[in-house]
Amino acid sequence: MIDVTPVLSRADQNLGLSLDRLFELLRIKSISTDPAYKADCRMAAEWLVAYLKTLGFEASVRDTPGHPMVVAHHADAGADAPHVLFYGHYDVQPVDPVELWENDPFEPAITDMGNGRKILTGRGTADDKGQLMTFVEACRAYKEVNGALPCRITILFEGEEESGSPSLKPFLEANAAELKADYALVCDTGMWDRETPAIAATLRGLVGEEVVVTAADRDLHSGLFGGAAANPIHVLTAALSGLHDETGRVALENFYEGVEETPANIRASWEKLGQTAESFLGQVGLSVPSGEKGRSVLELTWARPTAEVNGIWGGYTGEGFKTVIAAKASAKVSFRLVGKQDPAKIRETFRSYIRSKIPADCSVEFHPHGGSPAIHLAYDSPVITRAKSALSDEWPKPAVVIGMGGSIPIVGDFQTMLGMESLLVGFGLSDDRIHSPNEKYELASYHKGIRSWVRILDALAA
Amino acid sequence: MIDVTPVLSRADQNLGLSLDRLFELLRIKSISTDPAYKADCRMAAEWLVAYLKTLGFEASVRDTPGHPMVVAHHADAGADAPHVLFYGHYDVQPVDPVELWENDPFEPAITDMGNGRKILTGRGTADDKGQLMTFVEACRAYKEVNGALPCRITILFEGEEESGSPSLKPFLEANAAELKADYALVCDTGMWDRETPAIAATLRGLVGEEVVVTAADRDLHSGLFGGAAANPIHVLTAALSGLHDETGRVALENFYEGVEETPANIRASWEKLGQTAESFLGQVGLSVPSGEKGRSVLELTWARPTAEVNGIWGGYTGEGFKTVIAAKASAKVSFRLVGKQDPAKIRETFRSYIRSKIPADCSVEFHPHGGSPAIHLAYDSPVITRAKSALSDEWPKPAVVIGMGGSIPIVGDFQTMLGMESLLVGFGLSDDRIHSPNEKYELASYHKGIRSWVRILDALAA
Repeated sequence: MIDVTPVLSRADQNLGLSLDRLFELLRIKSISTDPAYKADCRMAAEWLVAYLKTLGFEASVRDTPGHPMVVAHHADAGADAPHVLFYGHYDVQPVDPVELWENDPFEPAITDMGNGRKILTGRGTADDKGQLMTFVEACRAYKEVNGALPCRITILFEGEEESGSPSLKPFLEANAAELKADYALVCDTGMWDRETPAIAATLRGLVGEEVVVTAADRDLHSGLFGGAAANPIHVLTAALSGLHDETGRVALENFYEGVEETPANIRASWEKLGQTAESFLGQVGLSVPSGEKGRSVLELTWARPTAEVNGIWGGYTGEGFKTVIAAKASAKVSFRLVGKQDPAKIRETFRSYIRSKIPADCSVEFHPHGGSPAIHLAYDSPVITRAKSALSDEWPKPAVVIGMGGSIPIVGDFQTMLGMESLLVGFGLSDDRIHSPNEKYELASYHKGIRSWVRILDALAA
Repeated sequence: MIDVTPVLSRADQNLGLSLDRLFELLRIKSISTDPAYKADCRMAAEWLVAYLKTLGFEASVRDTPGHPMVVAHHADAGADAPHVLFYGHYDVQPVDPVELWENDPFEPAITDMGNGRKILTGRGTADDKGQLMTFVEACRAYKEVNGALPCRITILFEGEEESGSPSLKPFLEANAAELKADYALVCDTGMWDRETPAIAATLRGLVGEEVVVTAADRDLHSGLFGGAAANPIHVLTAALSGLHDETGRVALENFYEGVEETPANIRASWEKLGQTAESFLGQVGLSVPSGEKGRSVLELTWARPTAEVNGIWGGYTGEGFKTVIAAKASAKVSFRLVGKQDPAKIRETFRSYIRSKIPADCSVEFHPHGGSPAIHLAYDSPVITRAKSALSDEWPKPAVVIGMGGSIPIVGDFQTMLGMESLLVGFGLSDDRIHSPNEKYELASYHKGIRSWVRILDALAA
């Protein structure tokens, strides 16, 4: 470890110019999901390549069937230095409804909120242009002070993250050797709160299934057939209601195979965050945790698997009443997975269970929707331990290692396709309004984000 | 009882002219639900009044806020003769999709189907103009042969049966004294089969409820909240799945209060009809009776109460997948009632049950949709016994006393508002395509229907 003070100081001195550079990038309308902005997406990629080249990266725009990738390498740290792959995305969400924006979404601005707090406004400030530039500007500070970077660095910027990343897997596959590093750094997540940085160590996996139960070959009149004919809504609701036992656990056979208990020290650190059932559920008008009894809401949403019915429909659903016995009833069901739960096994167990609940004269069809395993980094891996310490040096409160209830597919792809774990660090806040009008990013997130990467790169190089 | 042979012979001789009269009525486009046919509805009422007057009825068109009623009285049978109220309806269903009709729906025709079978085609032939005219023509035969009718007869023809009968209850209430008779004759039902006439002795009642369960105050992301936040679809499906026990019985407390077992002789007569689970359910692609174990499909649909979910919806129901935890989930639930089950009590029991299944931080709303008790005539009442014998004399096979799984609200209204039981006899067949294109009525239904009423009126007068 070297003394990072001069690098941090340089980052501070660079702040004004680094904001100018970020704003240049923010003005490019790189909306990936709308074909009208195809040229803008390429322009954003080209802008990044040009900028990375000024920092000594060997950088290029790489074509895909969709929007291009940016790949850049910087190897002057030497073969013995650790090698990291930094991932971010330069594409942004559409801006509709545009009339709800207080400023032009592509004319970024700095607004003084008083009490020393300033925010950057505009589409992409938080998701993800502002975040990815924290890393690039950290590299710049290093380069300017030391003439070199502390690690070997490969950069991968994607232009299709907001439109389902259709080109990503083929690109990773075709360029695996080039992109493989010791581990990945992913900057697309958030802080715990304004003062507490966070490292996401776990991401839940997901299995989606659509279930269609068919009974009679047509809709029936409940006067004529009610009491004799199978009602597919009854069949479906009875089956779905058996997915949980009375303690809130998922009742499928062997469902918890591969689920491990969260270490006591991690649970203790979560306790300290002060999130209660009331505070967590209260923000959406609820108060009673619905899942497994005896576990905190953070544990339930970060570290425990779930079964959720995301949609259900069948029979007459319009105004008034129709005494029909439907021919079909359907549901969309998803499972959030943790630990080593196997998506394929969970899917098969679910299907077997549902099939066991279908009467002899009814039938059931399944349509799969996605399946990905959970991501679990060791809570005490050297990478996390070093990043935690680095972040704790920068922010008012010590960094916390958290879980994430959702999924970030890229992290799974890095794991399965490149055999590489990820470190998930980001500086967004829950009120950044990503994907919504008036997206913002705290100036503190940007400035201290750059300083955080300076510290993390230093810690990783040690 | 007098010798009805000459009356029956006169009915036979009248057949040609009676068909001409029926066709005149069928040509009137009395579609009650479509305001464009308002004048036609009145024309049908006026046509009936004019015709009834020719038979010596004191008849009049009676205005309502909707389409008019026809009320007619014929009292020359004397004060000691039994007094019956005959009910039918002169309005018909719309004819859409009109392009599926083989003939103009309002240009009735007789078609020879071979083997001596002829059918009458056109809107209203079976529902209900053909049926009501069987009774009127029976009166004509009596009048022509004997100069008098065997009973005191009041006739009530409604013009809004196919559009929800909005004027019926107020009209019954306002004219209760005038309309009250010893019992009502309702001709809007069918035969068991071509050779077997049927008397419907029971009609199931109905209670409808819409249930809306609300959890969070907005839709939630299942990654962020799944496992901690209440899912209203889970709450609803768990509650609905508890409506039945594992033997198919409805599991609500005291639900079977007022339900009586069907007499053994009636069950035996139903057995003789030869309807099996396979034949009944096979017609709609099913085979396994879903209701209470150990009961025949006829008993299940005619004489046992049910709970059916007629519709359910909540969450994401479109293409693809959305990992949402819905804010609300809804269902439409109905109960078919038998015996003395009390609709108000059943509704309250259901609501209490559902409320008991709602977590403390969720809420539930109920919207009532209709409630009517079951109709149960004594299977061996004198009226049924006489009508059964009369029908058995007319048709190739003995009449059978059946139940009906659905509801006919007028029968309940007669019972509660006029204190009068109903005899339900009709000559429709299940393939008459009522409410559909190419509605038909068997010529045999019409001809032997007239003869049946001759015999029934004679039997009732005895």
